[in-house]
Amino acid sequence: MSGVLLRAADLHGSVTDPGMESMNFLNEVVGRFPDAISFAPGRPYEGFFETSQVFDYLKAYTDYLERERGFTSAQVRTNIFQYGRTNGHIHDLIARTVSNDEGIEVSPQSVVVTVGCQEGMLLTLRALFAGPDDVLLVSSPCYVGITGTATVLDIPIHPVPEGPHGVDPAAVAAAAAEVRAQGKRPRAMYLVPDFANPSGSSMPVEAREELLRVAEQEDLLLLEDNPYGFFLREGNPRPTLKALDRAKRVIYLGSFAKTGFPGARVGYVLADQPVAALDGTVGVLADSLSKIKSMTTVNTAALSQAAIGGMLVLADCKLRDANAQAIDFYRTNLQTVLDQLEHHFPADVRASLGISWNAPEGGFFLVVKVPFPANDAALHRAAGDYGVLWTPMSYFHHDTAGDHQLRLSCSALDPDTIVEGMTRLARFIKDSSAA
Amino acid sequence: MSGVLLRAADLHGSVTDPGMESMNFLNEVVGRFPDAISFAPGRPYEGFFETSQVFDYLKAYTDYLERERGFTSAQVRTNIFQYGRTNGHIHDLIARTVSNDEGIEVSPQSVVVTVGCQEGMLLTLRALFAGPDDVLLVSSPCYVGITGTATVLDIPIHPVPEGPHGVDPAAVAAAAAEVRAQGKRPRAMYLVPDFANPSGSSMPVEAREELLRVAEQEDLLLLEDNPYGFFLREGNPRPTLKALDRAKRVIYLGSFAKTGFPGARVGYVLADQPVAALDGTVGVLADSLSKIKSMTTVNTAALSQAAIGGMLVLADCKLRDANAQAIDFYRTNLQTVLDQLEHHFPADVRASLGISWNAPEGGFFLVVKVPFPANDAALHRAAGDYGVLWTPMSYFHHDTAGDHQLRLSCSALDPDTIVEGMTRLARFIKDSSAA
Repeated sequence: MSGVLLRAADLHGSVTDPGMESMNFLNEVVGRFPDAISFAPGRPYEGFFETSQVFDYLKAYTDYLERERGFTSAQVRTNIFQYGRTNGHIHDLIARTVSNDEGIEVSPQSVVVTVGCQEGMLLTLRALFAGPDDVLLVSSPCYVGITGTATVLDIPIHPVPEGPHGVDPAAVAAAAAEVRAQGKRPRAMYLVPDFANPSGSSMPVEAREELLRVAEQEDLLLLEDNPYGFFLREGNPRPTLKALDRAKRVIYLGSFAKTGFPGARVGYVLADQPVAALDGTVGVLADSLSKIKSMTTVNTAALSQAAIGGMLVLADCKLRDANAQAIDFYRTNLQTVLDQLEHHFPADVRASLGISWNAPEGGFFLVVKVPFPANDAALHRAAGDYGVLWTPMSYFHHDTAGDHQLRLSCSALDPDTIVEGMTRLARFIKDSSAA
Repeated sequence: MSGVLLRAADLHGSVTDPGMESMNFLNEVVGRFPDAISFAPGRPYEGFFETSQVFDYLKAYTDYLERERGFTSAQVRTNIFQYGRTNGHIHDLIARTVSNDEGIEVSPQSVVVTVGCQEGMLLTLRALFAGPDDVLLVSSPCYVGITGTATVLDIPIHPVPEGPHGVDPAAVAAAAAEVRAQGKRPRAMYLVPDFANPSGSSMPVEAREELLRVAEQEDLLLLEDNPYGFFLREGNPRPTLKALDRAKRVIYLGSFAKTGFPGARVGYVLADQPVAALDGTVGVLADSLSKIKSMTTVNTAALSQAAIGGMLVLADCKLRDANAQAIDFYRTNLQTVLDQLEHHFPADVRASLGISWNAPEGGFFLVVKVPFPANDAALHRAAGDYGVLWTPMSYFHHDTAGDHQLRLSCSALDPDTIVEGMTRLARFIKDSSAA
């Protein structure tokens, strides 16, 4: 037998989708230039982690089960080792935490504990999108995790351009009308209202309230993703869409990857929308997600839930307070990047070169506009000749709007490395702009 | 604002699929009659678990990274806490284990570490099934995890009836021809060759070889799921399809839920099929699965991988040997169920009542045929009036073939409880048969 040879063209379209390929190029470049200073990844800083923590967290959780919940040691064992409830067993701790941190009040029954926020997106999109006429609106530029998931599920997307203050409610209404004019159903809008990835933009409170009105008018659901909301650089925290939501229009996608640690792969969905079943009884959307979750991962690893559960117990379900040190750290990092940009490109220099950037009020990301194409070739040149990495904004756009922009992420580096990295980046930008 | 009210009929079809509802009924009954002895779940026996094990496993893994792999403590920290390689970081340990235990030789690069076997099914189906004309053949009766995943992905299925010796290669060839006659493509066949769930049947070696020939003739891939292969009741282990596969027709779906513990949610896919990319270069199917996995769960929890990795290190990658005690235990359990059936229904009694059962050579499950409808009403009666639970075989069929059959699972109980449970079950069956 000669053996099978599969053809990529015969596999599902998501395998060869260019949007899903772009990140591979970035990873390859990162691998090829390991000594380059990288402003590419949005991963958290590792200096806060200590391997022993994970044992402390697990211990805190099993203690909590025994002391506060009255579990026998056999029940603790079952909790850690066996299959568990599909929607998870730390749903009550999560409901308390979002109440404390965000003023979001949901019943634990509305919480779905997921394998990272990514599985939350998968479950939510799968449940809501019934067929080819259901269209997902996305902010543009947009996080690839949501557009990639839509590709995996063959869900059509419709980009809604962001303004300087993030998603513009009027643009969402216009996009919904446009989709409807094509005979299709605008089903939901995905966005990151606070310190968006990749743009760094944030929505003012009035725009949030207006967006909720638009959602009601257009019969849209809002998928609010909020991994960076704690990490303010300046100003005060704004209420999340979900905290402002009176009509249950908002499905909230939560993550512990930045406020806990990514290795646990624990996220959650707050899905408190009522759902009328075929027999007329009314349940909650979290239960619909549960049916799908039983076919994606059965349940989120008990071990991971125990680690994150222990972390929440130790923080008394006040994760914002527990993140005080991290909030300071990321504030300093983002400010350092902005200070360095100002230092290397004072007003006259940036005007003459045609360079600009935004100054996000928080989060991990900002965008620099440059006068040359910020493409794969430029990235390769920056890595090889200057020892610095960044992400082309074109990866996050479905049109050409990002072709002369680069995303800088400042979360994984310490301030000294940022200063050195920005010196390298400034040389790269100046040389490329002059050329 | 009155607020949103979603309609289940407007959600994706998988949410209201009857096949996905049936398990809910079972779970409800289990919840309502907590004191019933349950032959329903296929979960492993808990007596082998000890909460402290999980700490030992994690410690063994971090020690392994430091001592054998030369990781610094900072690298260990990164490994446990950060995002990681999409296809996992215990792929080499898994490749060594399947070589030791099953004689399956694959490169670690062909291993995808998944969030339980369930995610492995999701990734594999998504990659292979490009559109509505790609049809999945499944053994019938069939594990609901694969048919449910197909429903989530809108993949059409075509059942292939099992014989007493499991999947019949001639029936697979006939099914493939039938699908092709409908103008569709039979893309892959899912099966459990060893001690299938739910039927308990196993394929003889010659049938395995014949099935590989059919796969080659019909250009089919075989999805071999093997969660129970270690657990022999009698006879010798048979080679897996993957061990016999010379043409790379077999994608192997592995699980640590029964040989390790379900709470880790770690499984794997062996996907060593060559894939010709659009540009003509040849990669391996595991890399295509990786692209999809980055959009389902990003990577399998590092913490879970560390626990299973530590377990494999402690077992010197010989998991069959490490499971000697479990193999003995499940052998005794299955034999006890068979002995009890013989005791309560000797030949003359079963002949007069019209009752029969199969005697699987291993695994967790067997099937009892009864003269009354083994439906939800009967299950409710068994639980309420007799204190015993089982699973209607109709849940696993797409036709009426299982309407008078019940599945017994013997994995989660100890032998004394099995004896008491079988006494209750025998009373239930006798009363229902007489009625």
